[in-house]
Amino acid sequence: MSSSTRRRSTVHDVARVAGVSRGTVSRVLNGGYVSDSSRTAIEEAIREVGYVPNTAARNLVRQRTQAIAFIVHEPHALFLEDPNIGAIMLGTNETLSEADYQMVCLVVDSDRDTERVARYLNGGFVDGAVIVSARAQDPITKAVMRLDLPVAYVGHPPDVDAAWVGVDNHGAARAITSRLHETGRRRIGMIAAALDRDSGADRLAGFTEALGADFDPALVEPVPLYSYADGAAAMTRLLERAPDIDGVFAASDAVAAGAIWALREAGRRVPEDVGIVGFDNSTWALRTTPLLSTVDQPAEGLGAAAAASVLAQLRDDEPAARTGIMLDTPVVWRDSA
Amino acid sequence: MSSSTRRRSTVHDVARVAGVSRGTVSRVLNGGYVSDSSRTAIEEAIREVGYVPNTAARNLVRQRTQAIAFIVHEPHALFLEDPNIGAIMLGTNETLSEADYQMVCLVVDSDRDTERVARYLNGGFVDGAVIVSARAQDPITKAVMRLDLPVAYVGHPPDVDAAWVGVDNHGAARAITSRLHETGRRRIGMIAAALDRDSGADRLAGFTEALGADFDPALVEPVPLYSYADGAAAMTRLLERAPDIDGVFAASDAVAAGAIWALREAGRRVPEDVGIVGFDNSTWALRTTPLLSTVDQPAEGLGAAAAASVLAQLRDDEPAARTGIMLDTPVVWRDSA
Repeated sequence: MSSSTRRRSTVHDVARVAGVSRGTVSRVLNGGYVSDSSRTAIEEAIREVGYVPNTAARNLVRQRTQAIAFIVHEPHALFLEDPNIGAIMLGTNETLSEADYQMVCLVVDSDRDTERVARYLNGGFVDGAVIVSARAQDPITKAVMRLDLPVAYVGHPPDVDAAWVGVDNHGAARAITSRLHETGRRRIGMIAAALDRDSGADRLAGFTEALGADFDPALVEPVPLYSYADGAAAMTRLLERAPDIDGVFAASDAVAAGAIWALREAGRRVPEDVGIVGFDNSTWALRTTPLLSTVDQPAEGLGAAAAASVLAQLRDDEPAARTGIMLDTPVVWRDSA
Repeated sequence: MSSSTRRRSTVHDVARVAGVSRGTVSRVLNGGYVSDSSRTAIEEAIREVGYVPNTAARNLVRQRTQAIAFIVHEPHALFLEDPNIGAIMLGTNETLSEADYQMVCLVVDSDRDTERVARYLNGGFVDGAVIVSARAQDPITKAVMRLDLPVAYVGHPPDVDAAWVGVDNHGAARAITSRLHETGRRRIGMIAAALDRDSGADRLAGFTEALGADFDPALVEPVPLYSYADGAAAMTRLLERAPDIDGVFAASDAVAAGAIWALREAGRRVPEDVGIVGFDNSTWALRTTPLLSTVDQPAEGLGAAAAASVLAQLRDDEPAARTGIMLDTPVVWRDSA
């Protein structure tokens, strides 16, 4: 393919073919007034030379790109396993799409990615950002703050003065643990994941509060990730340490699915011998046997609310300083407890 | 926050503070020659006014954005369930990241998305694109062709004159079905998914060829999606229709996991009563009991190879017309057959 066929047509080409000035072409492209005969000539010339308006160039004048970043900061393995991330992203995409904004998803999987995404934000390619799984002091958060970019976090990052949407992890964990307790379970343990994040720490706090005097720290098994494999391994360890355990709150549905597998391997019946509840109400919850009782976390709703916050900040030309939105998390009681 | 604090510093501000012309500032930013004293003054001024170079503006001159689109065209439900998509994306991201390119993932979840993504490509925001699950005649493919954008498809879209990477679905399906046959299974069925795509149709063709005279069309159950739910429902129907079935090739690991659940519900032992094999070697394959025998599809490798193809086209300023790359798909034999 020759380089001449690769050259894009320009406004100059349109002006030449239409027999008008370049300024007249620009006025038509920007919706300004021109005579009907000039407009007709220009529209025909646009079709003839195959001109495609360079939106990036025009946005530069308007200082708007009509694009919003969706930034995911997750360890490699979890990105593939966690159904919430995809659901949050689809919620963001749908809300932005309705407002005719393009979502551009940027994945942070390495330190190199962190630096480059920060540069991309600096580069003026997006008008705002939704950020999932942020760390407070990383270069991306710093870039967002320095640029004063309209932004909304999913989850509540510490020490960041910005809008965020989330769920009451503490209250939801307390509610489902209380219900497990009320069904008569007396030796209730927890597989506590991701205690280095607010979501993980808050779920453990809610569990502890719900049990009150019945709380036994020996029945808490911490694991690094919200993953199936960590759930299976932790359940095996809990059974060895406390064979009389009769209830388990797993910190996510994936963790619960792994725990159910380990219980079955150990010959325990669910829910007859051990009642188990999860957190998320993701696709995992409908794949366990028996079906999983869990907390409904509105993942798509979180993505949609974060997108709506960024759009509102753009519309009002005003950042929503430190405004938090909490979405509801009803308990969904099925067959596993 | 007042609007004055939101205004970004410009080259003019830097020039004013440094006491030099705007052209001198531009020369420094673009790596041209200036005196040491001017360079020092400009660098100090950049720090003082907090100037951030507008990469979008500078790229406009260079006609390069240093960004590559990763376009996923999947039905909403499947995007959340299919672990391959995340793995392909991470493979693309890693290869682009090593070359200092930014991957921007664009999700196509509705017709509105299709039109807007096509406009985004027209807008000059990316230098090229990796496209997953393309449809030949959709507006995105048309936009890519019209813009002569360096592109690589994952999978082989019909009637598109462009680079692609994929696997030999036909050969891989034939290989794993043959092995199932060689282990002594005689009533072998298939849960055939997504027959409207080349991957689904090719897997059925490979299955049919492997069985030869032993092929029985009554043992093929077609389903729309590569999903757990479709696998479970199809296995139940197959067992009703052919209670003597003793082997199953499921068109994906998710389908196989659903089928294993249905077999267990029906009181059939895997692999003693029914041997079952899948396709993908995704995280699903390590969550089934027993562990799944399957075809290893190198999802991250596909994403990496597609990214490498786009980078090569950019480097050589030449599209790789209709060049196909096939990656290997070894059979991984575990415990389910």
